[in-house]
Amino acid sequence: MSAFLMAVYFKGMNKEETASLTLSMVNSGEYVDLSMIEGIKVDKHSSGGVGDKISLVIVPLCACAGIPVAKMSGRGLGHTGGTIDKLESIEGFRTELTKEEFINNVNKYKMAIVGQSPNLTPADKKIYALRDVTGTVDSIPLIASSIMSKKIASGCDCIVLDVKVGSGAFMKSVDEAVILARTMVEIGKSLGRKTVAVVTDMSQPLGHEVGNANEVKEAIDILKGCGAEDETAVALIIASHMAVLGGAFSDYESAYAQMCKLIESGDAVKKLKELISIQGGNPEVVDNPNLLPQAKRHIEVKASTEGYINSINAEDIGVSAMLLGAGRKTKNDSIDFAAGITMVKKVGDWVDKGDTLCILHTNMPDCNNAEELSKNAFVIKGTKPEPVKYVHCIID
Amino acid sequence: MSAFLMAVYFKGMNKEETASLTLSMVNSGEYVDLSMIEGIKVDKHSSGGVGDKISLVIVPLCACAGIPVAKMSGRGLGHTGGTIDKLESIEGFRTELTKEEFINNVNKYKMAIVGQSPNLTPADKKIYALRDVTGTVDSIPLIASSIMSKKIASGCDCIVLDVKVGSGAFMKSVDEAVILARTMVEIGKSLGRKTVAVVTDMSQPLGHEVGNANEVKEAIDILKGCGAEDETAVALIIASHMAVLGGAFSDYESAYAQMCKLIESGDAVKKLKELISIQGGNPEVVDNPNLLPQAKRHIEVKASTEGYINSINAEDIGVSAMLLGAGRKTKNDSIDFAAGITMVKKVGDWVDKGDTLCILHTNMPDCNNAEELSKNAFVIKGTKPEPVKYVHCIID
Repeated sequence: MSAFLMAVYFKGMNKEETASLTLSMVNSGEYVDLSMIEGIKVDKHSSGGVGDKISLVIVPLCACAGIPVAKMSGRGLGHTGGTIDKLESIEGFRTELTKEEFINNVNKYKMAIVGQSPNLTPADKKIYALRDVTGTVDSIPLIASSIMSKKIASGCDCIVLDVKVGSGAFMKSVDEAVILARTMVEIGKSLGRKTVAVVTDMSQPLGHEVGNANEVKEAIDILKGCGAEDETAVALIIASHMAVLGGAFSDYESAYAQMCKLIESGDAVKKLKELISIQGGNPEVVDNPNLLPQAKRHIEVKASTEGYINSINAEDIGVSAMLLGAGRKTKNDSIDFAAGITMVKKVGDWVDKGDTLCILHTNMPDCNNAEELSKNAFVIKGTKPEPVKYVHCIID
Repeated sequence: MSAFLMAVYFKGMNKEETASLTLSMVNSGEYVDLSMIEGIKVDKHSSGGVGDKISLVIVPLCACAGIPVAKMSGRGLGHTGGTIDKLESIEGFRTELTKEEFINNVNKYKMAIVGQSPNLTPADKKIYALRDVTGTVDSIPLIASSIMSKKIASGCDCIVLDVKVGSGAFMKSVDEAVILARTMVEIGKSLGRKTVAVVTDMSQPLGHEVGNANEVKEAIDILKGCGAEDETAVALIIASHMAVLGGAFSDYESAYAQMCKLIESGDAVKKLKELISIQGGNPEVVDNPNLLPQAKRHIEVKASTEGYINSINAEDIGVSAMLLGAGRKTKNDSIDFAAGITMVKKVGDWVDKGDTLCILHTNMPDCNNAEELSKNAFVIKGTKPEPVKYVHCIID
């Protein structure tokens, strides 16, 4: 397998080979049977980023639009966060449901979010461990088949992929991200799943909040219609594609219009409250986000020069949040839900010397490293940068 | 290691990397200490061919010229023969000597031939097994480092490499063979061993005999001065290079002249008799080669058309000899020393329809496969082919 991985690393795989490897990994473990759920099951996957709370937004939004979302999500590792960790910052929220609860909730409420079954694609896990030690992680067909095997084993009918690109993503260039997106879409189609990929920007953290509890708060804001512009845009686009794939709308434009309406009407945020409630969490956090865990210390990171924010290294912000307690360096580390970073300024903003760039939230006594790293993540220059594109392209 | 091998297969290694891998393999096992042997120890290695009995010729020849040859040789596998098997076709010949016998014989008689110590380069053995299963056998830096690690661990000061090229060799083109030769010469020099490579022809079997006992007989003929032209030429060139590296002659021409003299005078064949005698074999075989094992059946393979022999597929002849009992399909097969093939005709010869192309010697009742394979190895055409070059080039 190590030799195979190295051969793929250098020589790639064609469509059939990539689909075949994916299917082998699917067949190595449990296949989640969602046939008891009525309707077309649409899943969504993010290739991982910083401040990415899209899943918290699109699950209630799609459910609200009548599309059943049986979502399995992961935990954070390194500089990227995980939806399951974020949800667990809500007191009482259960991310482990029985199979029956999971299916019943989706049938009844059109939504459920649980942690990924540990029995999915065991071959992928073993292969990933080998990729890690053989230096073959960075291979498009291996990345694509790994992601797609988990999605397909999760039992969905259709998949919307959010492929992140930029300083906080695995893919650093749009060209690479497009190739990855296209490879995954081809795998999905080869294996009979309608698949659409949205290549979205991760050249700076998404939204204003990076962490766990503070990301839940921001998701609530988005669903209330007062969230960050970039993340709201990306969430609406992804949710709309899911709605079209799920057959709820015949065209993208009407799906998008309906998603906007569901936010404006307050139905979307009500649906989040319902999600929290049915999975055992305290729904009051939606009306009063201060009920979410709060950190003791709040450190303002200030600009040491004036100018326009030209870029914000998203990975460095992700690592800073991890150092503050919001993430895991290794799989078994524990998380401080209250820790995180609020991005006060984003790319394109003007700052005067001494203005606050971001605020670090932590319960740790010493966070000099995070302070320095997050400060250096901001590149300030005299010239105004090009406007950031939230979505680079759609591949279907 | 599997991943590493595949990476090398696709990306190669530079000089330093190849030398470094070689040294690591040398250091993985026993290093044969030849420091108790007086003089400069010159070793010779063949990359493997069909009918290649050069070692049987050059050991007594070099010893006769005063160059100490402490030779460790291998056994045959597949279509290629091994010097140790050939010697064991001489009744009583001991290819296992104690360390003391080995060193004493070289000091006293300037020569000894033994089987390779099983403790040399264990890493190479393990790596080879991985190359076999990962499809990375055919990689020049891996082949070169494997060969050179064994030579260097054998304790010699200088090395003459006989790199075979053609249908019976691992390298099928001169270009490839030259790259392999150059890579090995570079490794030798990087690790402080004077190294010369002779790229020799293996587009047809070398000499007239392929097998074991019959190859010993042909080696005797060569040392008597009445051997096949091609093999005599190659043996003299290799022995002369060894003599120069060993410091016995200041220039190649005088070494070559002396080697010819040693054959003409009868000293060289006398030295072979001595070699057989001191290692426990029956020296009478030199004067009476009929004392060597003889097969019961001799099958003449005849030409079914007239014309010039344009080529003889050496690998097919090697495999035919193996099928007759002269070789091993797998490591643990036993050998019939009497079996083999006499090449009556060689490339460039004219044959009439019905002329004997080669004679199969065997004790097996059924040898239809070998008969057909050896017959088809001969390509007969109306046009006379270009004369065969015995030596393609010298790399030093």
